[in-house]
Amino acid sequence: MVSEVKSLNEECGVFGIWGDAQAAELTYFGLHALQHRGQEGAGIVANEQGHLSGEKGLGLLTEVFDHPDKLAHLTGNAAIGHVRYATAGSAGIENIQPLLFNFNQQQVALAHNGNLTNAVSLRATLEAAGAIFHANSDTEVLMHLIQRQTAATFEQRLKASLRQIKGGFAYLVLTNDALYAALDPNGFRPLALGQLATGAYVVASETCALDTVNARFIRDVQPGELIKIDDHGYHVKSYTTDTQLAVCSMEFIYFARPDSTIYGVNVHQARERMGQLLAKEQPVDADIVVGVPNSSLSAANGYAAASGIPYEMGLIKNQYSQRTFIQPTQRLREQGVRMKLSAVTAVVKGKKVALVDDSLVRGTTSNYIVRLLKEAGATAVHLLIASPPLRYPCFYGIDIENTRELLAANLTLPQMQAQIGADSLHFLSVAGLIAAINLKSSAPYSGLCVAYFNGDYPTPLYDYAATFELPQVMA
Amino acid sequence: MVSEVKSLNEECGVFGIWGDAQAAELTYFGLHALQHRGQEGAGIVANEQGHLSGEKGLGLLTEVFDHPDKLAHLTGNAAIGHVRYATAGSAGIENIQPLLFNFNQQQVALAHNGNLTNAVSLRATLEAAGAIFHANSDTEVLMHLIQRQTAATFEQRLKASLRQIKGGFAYLVLTNDALYAALDPNGFRPLALGQLATGAYVVASETCALDTVNARFIRDVQPGELIKIDDHGYHVKSYTTDTQLAVCSMEFIYFARPDSTIYGVNVHQARERMGQLLAKEQPVDADIVVGVPNSSLSAANGYAAASGIPYEMGLIKNQYSQRTFIQPTQRLREQGVRMKLSAVTAVVKGKKVALVDDSLVRGTTSNYIVRLLKEAGATAVHLLIASPPLRYPCFYGIDIENTRELLAANLTLPQMQAQIGADSLHFLSVAGLIAAINLKSSAPYSGLCVAYFNGDYPTPLYDYAATFELPQVMA
Amino acid sequence: MVSEVKSLNEECGVFGIWGDAQAAELTYFGLHALQHRGQEGAGIVANEQGHLSGEKGLGLLTEVFDHPDKLAHLTGNAAIGHVRYATAGSAGIENIQPLLFNFNQQQVALAHNGNLTNAVSLRATLEAAGAIFHANSDTEVLMHLIQRQTAATFEQRLKASLRQIKGGFAYLVLTNDALYAALDPNGFRPLALGQLATGAYVVASETCALDTVNARFIRDVQPGELIKIDDHGYHVKSYTTDTQLAVCSMEFIYFARPDSTIYGVNVHQARERMGQLLAKEQPVDADIVVGVPNSSLSAANGYAAASGIPYEMGLIKNQYSQRTFIQPTQRLREQGVRMKLSAVTAVVKGKKVALVDDSLVRGTTSNYIVRLLKEAGATAVHLLIASPPLRYPCFYGIDIENTRELLAANLTLPQMQAQIGADSLHFLSVAGLIAAINLKSSAPYSGLCVAYFNGDYPTPLYDYAATFELPQVMA
Amino acid sequence: MVSEVKSLNEECGVFGIWGDAQAAELTYFGLHALQHRGQEGAGIVANEQGHLSGEKGLGLLTEVFDHPDKLAHLTGNAAIGHVRYATAGSAGIENIQPLLFNFNQQQVALAHNGNLTNAVSLRATLEAAGAIFHANSDTEVLMHLIQRQTAATFEQRLKASLRQIKGGFAYLVLTNDALYAALDPNGFRPLALGQLATGAYVVASETCALDTVNARFIRDVQPGELIKIDDHGYHVKSYTTDTQLAVCSMEFIYFARPDSTIYGVNVHQARERMGQLLAKEQPVDADIVVGVPNSSLSAANGYAAASGIPYEMGLIKNQYSQRTFIQPTQRLREQGVRMKLSAVTAVVKGKKVALVDDSLVRGTTSNYIVRLLKEAGATAVHLLIASPPLRYPCFYGIDIENTRELLAANLTLPQMQAQIGADSLHFLSVAGLIAAINLKSSAPYSGLCVAYFNGDYPTPLYDYAATFELPQVMA
Repeated sequence: MVSEVKSLNEECGVFGIWGDAQAAELTYFGLHALQHRGQEGAGIVANEQGHLSGEKGLGLLTEVFDHPDKLAHLTGNAAIGHVRYATAGSAGIENIQPLLFNFNQQQVALAHNGNLTNAVSLRATLEAAGAIFHANSDTEVLMHLIQRQTAATFEQRLKASLRQIKGGFAYLVLTNDALYAALDPNGFRPLALGQLATGAYVVASETCALDTVNARFIRDVQPGELIKIDDHGYHVKSYTTDTQLAVCSMEFIYFARPDSTIYGVNVHQARERMGQLLAKEQPVDADIVVGVPNSSLSAANGYAAASGIPYEMGLIKNQYSQRTFIQPTQRLREQGVRMKLSAVTAVVKGKKVALVDDSLVRGTTSNYIVRLLKEAGATAVHLLIASPPLRYPCFYGIDIENTRELLAANLTLPQMQAQIGADSLHFLSVAGLIAAINLKSSAPYSGLCVAYFNGDYPTPLYDYAATFELPQVMA
Repeated sequence: MVSEVKSLNEECGVFGIWGDAQAAELTYFGLHALQHRGQEGAGIVANEQGHLSGEKGLGLLTEVFDHPDKLAHLTGNAAIGHVRYATAGSAGIENIQPLLFNFNQQQVALAHNGNLTNAVSLRATLEAAGAIFHANSDTEVLMHLIQRQTAATFEQRLKASLRQIKGGFAYLVLTNDALYAALDPNGFRPLALGQLATGAYVVASETCALDTVNARFIRDVQPGELIKIDDHGYHVKSYTTDTQLAVCSMEFIYFARPDSTIYGVNVHQARERMGQLLAKEQPVDADIVVGVPNSSLSAANGYAAASGIPYEMGLIKNQYSQRTFIQPTQRLREQGVRMKLSAVTAVVKGKKVALVDDSLVRGTTSNYIVRLLKEAGATAVHLLIASPPLRYPCFYGIDIENTRELLAANLTLPQMQAQIGADSLHFLSVAGLIAAINLKSSAPYSGLCVAYFNGDYPTPLYDYAATFELPQVMA
Repeated sequence: MVSEVKSLNEECGVFGIWGDAQAAELTYFGLHALQHRGQEGAGIVANEQGHLSGEKGLGLLTEVFDHPDKLAHLTGNAAIGHVRYATAGSAGIENIQPLLFNFNQQQVALAHNGNLTNAVSLRATLEAAGAIFHANSDTEVLMHLIQRQTAATFEQRLKASLRQIKGGFAYLVLTNDALYAALDPNGFRPLALGQLATGAYVVASETCALDTVNARFIRDVQPGELIKIDDHGYHVKSYTTDTQLAVCSMEFIYFARPDSTIYGVNVHQARERMGQLLAKEQPVDADIVVGVPNSSLSAANGYAAASGIPYEMGLIKNQYSQRTFIQPTQRLREQGVRMKLSAVTAVVKGKKVALVDDSLVRGTTSNYIVRLLKEAGATAVHLLIASPPLRYPCFYGIDIENTRELLAANLTLPQMQAQIGADSLHFLSVAGLIAAINLKSSAPYSGLCVAYFNGDYPTPLYDYAATFELPQVMA
Repeated sequence: MVSEVKSLNEECGVFGIWGDAQAAELTYFGLHALQHRGQEGAGIVANEQGHLSGEKGLGLLTEVFDHPDKLAHLTGNAAIGHVRYATAGSAGIENIQPLLFNFNQQQVALAHNGNLTNAVSLRATLEAAGAIFHANSDTEVLMHLIQRQTAATFEQRLKASLRQIKGGFAYLVLTNDALYAALDPNGFRPLALGQLATGAYVVASETCALDTVNARFIRDVQPGELIKIDDHGYHVKSYTTDTQLAVCSMEFIYFARPDSTIYGVNVHQARERMGQLLAKEQPVDADIVVGVPNSSLSAANGYAAASGIPYEMGLIKNQYSQRTFIQPTQRLREQGVRMKLSAVTAVVKGKKVALVDDSLVRGTTSNYIVRLLKEAGATAVHLLIASPPLRYPCFYGIDIENTRELLAANLTLPQMQAQIGADSLHFLSVAGLIAAINLKSSAPYSGLCVAYFNGDYPTPLYDYAATFELPQVMA
């Protein structure tokens, strides 16, 4: 949740609802609970008696919907919404979702969380056949595929198209008469179905959004499933049976909200167990345990409980650091001006600190925090990462594009420790991670994707295979 | 820091600097660290070679300074800034500080944190003598007093005026050639002096702002002091010797940032001790300790440590709930739509919860949280307030205007417990609070103001005396 | 130019430039001169060494480019721009032009003024073949046609596509290495080529935009031409030889700016001649001639000169009425509150007024103006329309969609006069209009399109043929 | 009305209403008709059953009231409003009027059009007595004077204060129970009283605002009058009998809207007569008469009629040039890029042009227009100014601050002609101006102020006397 610090970003959250007169409002509140999954743009498309219309914009949900008028015109009983994280090159309004397509006969709105591994080649093939793309995102590829299918029904065309795309994806598709939710064959991204007391069905990237609108959890959408929701209820279908569970382990480590539950595992508790197992695997000599706020507090708590070392609030995050148009100049940064994190001198002074962080990407933040703690008087800082070293890129929806920027892909443990300036540096093992999450599945790695740690990707890499590079330092 | 939930609000934060070429930028970053003290408006006035000019607006600091241009034109070596909490009736731009006054001979800018107890009568007297006030805030009263003094120097006129005003105040006054910082005779509001590596002096409502700009802490401003900072350094003066320390205990309980230190006492650690003493005074039969995020986490941690009951993250606060223009309708609220807090079902289900909150104002939030936890499966919720019952209004700068809205002023303990729906309800004692904060002072209540708890105001009430009402339920 | 009063709207203006280091700035100023052709949206796409990027938005050009930053990032030596008039149903940002398409191999930006008569059927065919349209405007059709051509060069594909579209169009197409300007086979819409002193070539909907950037007029683009501009100069090509000039006569009557010259005819002078011929065809007994500001002043001047009746400023238009978010309520309108036009009582009181207007659409404005003049004391108001009765819709780019809303299509002359409340009502004849414009051409109607007056459309109606309705009252 | 071109600016327009349930809306529409008198800021204060509240902001009226919400909250039966022209140094929001003052016992709102000649000394005296001013405008001075009076009633205090201020002023004062309109003893600025059909009374800077809200004109407010409007009707009172009419002649020449009538003289017709008399005083050898749009069209029409030379539309003003954030760079200006005015080549080519402008200030615009016409092919340009040479500053409300910037104050006629580049240059005589306006008054100059032309100020100069400089070239 400190994406601005870590530069490790989720690519989006989705929310859909069918059957409530306040569909757009509920989508707004659902998306608000998913805001941590994307802060660059947001949008909602509503279905008013078969007619779709939408509103979207750049920025936080509250910035896009900065006047009740913006929401009030989105009437109707169904809606889908999206919060987006965008890489720099594709930050235009045209990439903000849901994408709304108007055809002569029907309208279709699409919202997508994930990343396709064959989008580039599909796009090239489609363009060669005359297709015109308006946005950079993968989302549009699915619409072009659907449009070129010849099957009789929309559902059949959708299923055939889903079989053509590869990678990680959770798609919501709103048409004039139904809401579809589709998950990739590995279930990389989480997607949950629920029901309101009013009978309306909702589907969302995380269960925290179901809780926010007070929806009862029904089930996780399963790999390869296509769930159709219409006025007759919800219908579970499959577009493929060639599935194998490989939930993104980074959802548990870092992305998902602590109160969300994915495939039966509560995220906060999984993080606590990561901290506990880390304490067992990597005991250190420390006076206090300090977590990096806010995402590492669960793991730090677990570490403290298992190690018996008291947990202390040694770092404070400024609650107002989400949006700023003014950054310290180079001169001020050198003078030590800092906006987001502060050390609590009274807590850390004269102490040996076990500093728990959820993950290590480039190491710049860790280096900064270690220095902060030492300047505040910590006599030693042991950095404990509650996940394994990140060494491989992700192709399924997390913004770890290449290994060059990953510290652990380029340096050995002692080199990393030296660069960060910590007195020692420790990681949780892959086995420890899997045990901590404890997903009940017979699939490899107990149903988790841990490819960023060990390079064992659950699928072919398709378009990314050609340029894939092994890390300098391997697992 | 969850002011929108609690409706208990601090009235402002101030920051001033003298002697750095990036004075306005540093003021911006200093105010950013004080944003929790006021979110309704912000402003900065800078001194460019004796000429003062400013920029201010409604909203968060980042909303007021929403383009680098807004800050870039505030050149000069000195500046003062202000973040404001405003009551509904006085939310206009004219009340946003610093107030900048242009006279024929000089300019004066004022920023103020606190509340005057004789402002109404001073204002009436001044108006009867022809004075015209443009804003509603107390701040302007001081300027009118200064302007009507006959003493030779500005400093003398300022001192004479400070002796006329009563109540709680921390004033920053920027003139063409100096920066003044004045504290009321009881030191109700915190105010700290520091120095940058560049030699510039800074003064701020809390030490967390000094830390943010990497200033070295020099000293707390003392009751009755007037500190003058100019190109020759800083000069400690007194405008009165009739002083008696009575620091606002609510700063420790709720307002100040955990990493701030007031009169030598770190706020986070004071809160931890409040939790510890509460555990000793009020043990409960619980499986887990849960704190209300974010302000009660220190106290909850202390309670857990002292009681031996494990601390768990049973409640999650949405990090993006600071600004929203769209609220759930009545129908959606009845359906259970909630934007700010969520219970972690996996944590609380089947558990007896010791719920720790820092304070209890109206009880509506507590009622809401207790219901949230019970709906998530908690079998019992014991509400533990890490401060005494709030029964009396504050006249020194906190927005507790009358006793009618204070739950503890109107109901007995069993009545409160019933209304909140908790299985039991407990408060820290006043003695426990004083012991937890542990201020080294020989003044009554060890140098703290605890009047909101026991009605023992350290000063006469002046304008408020006539309408003062005793609570229904007294301490 | 009083589109908000008349509800008769041009559909857009275009401007393009190749070869100047300040291409985007010059496009901005060129578009500013074309703002009267569309006030609903504006955009500019610039070519920076082969890479295209753009900026666009809803509203006036000055509202879209409301900060120099918005223009400053549009660097490069070439650019195209567009100002748009949009019908209610297609007011979204996605319809604002230029449309920028990103392909694997190249980028293409399109700006379009006009209306295609076979867009619906082309679109249906394209969608059936899998095409996906993102906007409602016709503009996109051309891109899809180009993309599905198989010819080797972009120019060949563009020519083949231009042969497939029907109707009125002036297209600007910016690619990575050239700027193309294409005009429909009838030259319905004006389009002029010019050159700056710096050598850069510019192309614009009207010559007033050339004047604004101080470009020398070279030539009008001719029907069926495709002009290619690149680093080697400009190249005149034809995509078809099946052409016949039929310039929109409404450009002369109402749309174009008086200082523009179309096919050698200055618009102001053509209007003056319309007024002169109207005076000869329709003399009236009046004391003064009054024109409806601002578009009818030329014709009124001509009428006065030819009739010998003095011209007087009897009506004033509020110069600030372009953008208002607040309109008089029904009650205030009934009380006579009026925002845009005022009668000059001192001028009209006791006078018989010859009121000259350029055209008559629904009659509501005329009715309002006649009442205004009579309330100001005019003893008689003779309404003189300096163009023939509008009875047929336009399919080539003017927003006269059906005959139902055209007064002259539904009422006889006496009925119209009665409804408007004028003492007499007169129109210029079609022959008089043609003589006044005096275009040197051997084509029918001297090279003008006068179909809105007599139903004699210069082309088949294609998609509009099926629903075409004859007016109730025919010429 | 082309203030951006001429840099000769009126200082504000005022509108007030008492007795209509839609008072604020009507004020909005009245101010809209006065927008030409000030474009830098606007505001409205409404009286809801004795309670005053307001809304104001920087920019055009339509920019300040950019959402119906902004107006909707201004309920009540009375209101005053203001449009402001501001000099660069005082452009802050605090100077935007009406100024609203809140006292313990009452509220007062002030709106002011004009300039006080003893404001600086009054302000110095008031400050020395302890007064604090918040804005730079003169408006506030009156409030301080009122507040320091000792008379029993507000009306008495207001009258006594009006006697203390000198210069040109039209003040509207809204209190909890009445609306006051006061005019200076010379009637420099126009102010008219009217009545709606609903019985409500309105008072406005120009009669065009009365017309806009369909109010019947009752009378001009006379010099030295104080009109009080309350629930019992309107009451004409005098605060002084030492009066002498000296209406600002620039109102007739340039500022007022052509449809306004001041002291019985219609502005358009006065301008026509200026043109007619100019033709008699200064005949030239020309083929066509061209007026500078929009303010000079009446005078040009008069010149054409009296000279027999045909009037032609040789210059076009861009209707969309009111607000732009982007100006041509120096390089583009040198290339001839022009945004506001265009010459109609077809009209002026080969012609000797009699160019009529209303006034001549710095000469830069005239120089620009002459060049424009010559580049368009005019063989000669004779510049005819329909008013006398401007040589002296105005101290009563027009922004002609010193003689340095006035061309005619520094150059002889031949020098001016050479600098402007005209083939000849001619001015209307002072006697001709007075005859053209033809005000029925026995006061000097027939009741007009012509001091900017001849230095004969109708009042002492007070604060300005010390720095007053005679022009280099005198009348």
